Amino acid sequence: MSNEELDQLRQELDEVNLELLKSINKRAQLVQEIGRVKKQQGMNRFDPVRERDMLDSITAHNDGPFENSTVQHIFKEIFKAGLELQEDDHRKALLV
Amino acid sequence: MSNEELDQLRQELDEVNLELLKSINKRAQLVQEIGRVKKQQGMNRFDPVRERDMLDSITAHNDGPFENSTVQHIFKEIFKAGLELQEDDHRKALLV
Repeated sequence: MSNEELDQLRQELDEVNLELLKSINKRAQLVQEIGRVKKQQGMNRFDPVRERDMLDSITAHNDGPFENSTVQHIFKEIFKAGLELQEDDHRKALLV
Repeated sequence: MSNEELDQLRQELDEVNLELLKSINKRAQLVQEIGRVKKQQGMNRFDPVRERDMLDSITAHNDGPFENSTVQHIFKEIFKAGLELQEDDHRKALLV
């Protein structure tokens, strides 16, 4: 296989990276919005049952090549980052 | 804001989760393909310069709400998982 084909694959990878970035930040915006709604309703931001349900649904839809355990690991990092974002928003709100 | 609106946001989040899952696995497939090409060409699978370039390009496109450091952390986990997948493929190839 030629380097041209490697370049082509890398270009596709760059495109998928940007798709991923877009979805990760779209998710972050939704998580911020959910955090604001929960705060208004006096609800706890962290909901382990909801997190478990999301992971179950994600792995139920997983066709690979990543193993379920890998997918869960990546999503847990994304969830954690979302929760930290909500906490930052909460801290900023307290400082206003 | 009503619970109906919270449900709506959660439904959107579930959709974004599945979009993310799709892109993560699409990325994994490309990484596997790149691994096969590199192996054929006798190239090293891990390329820290290429990884740095990808991270730079990703953060250059980052409009938030996630900070660059958070985006980099998540992508490093995704890169690591991709590399592990290539290593598994390589081990399986050796066993054939």
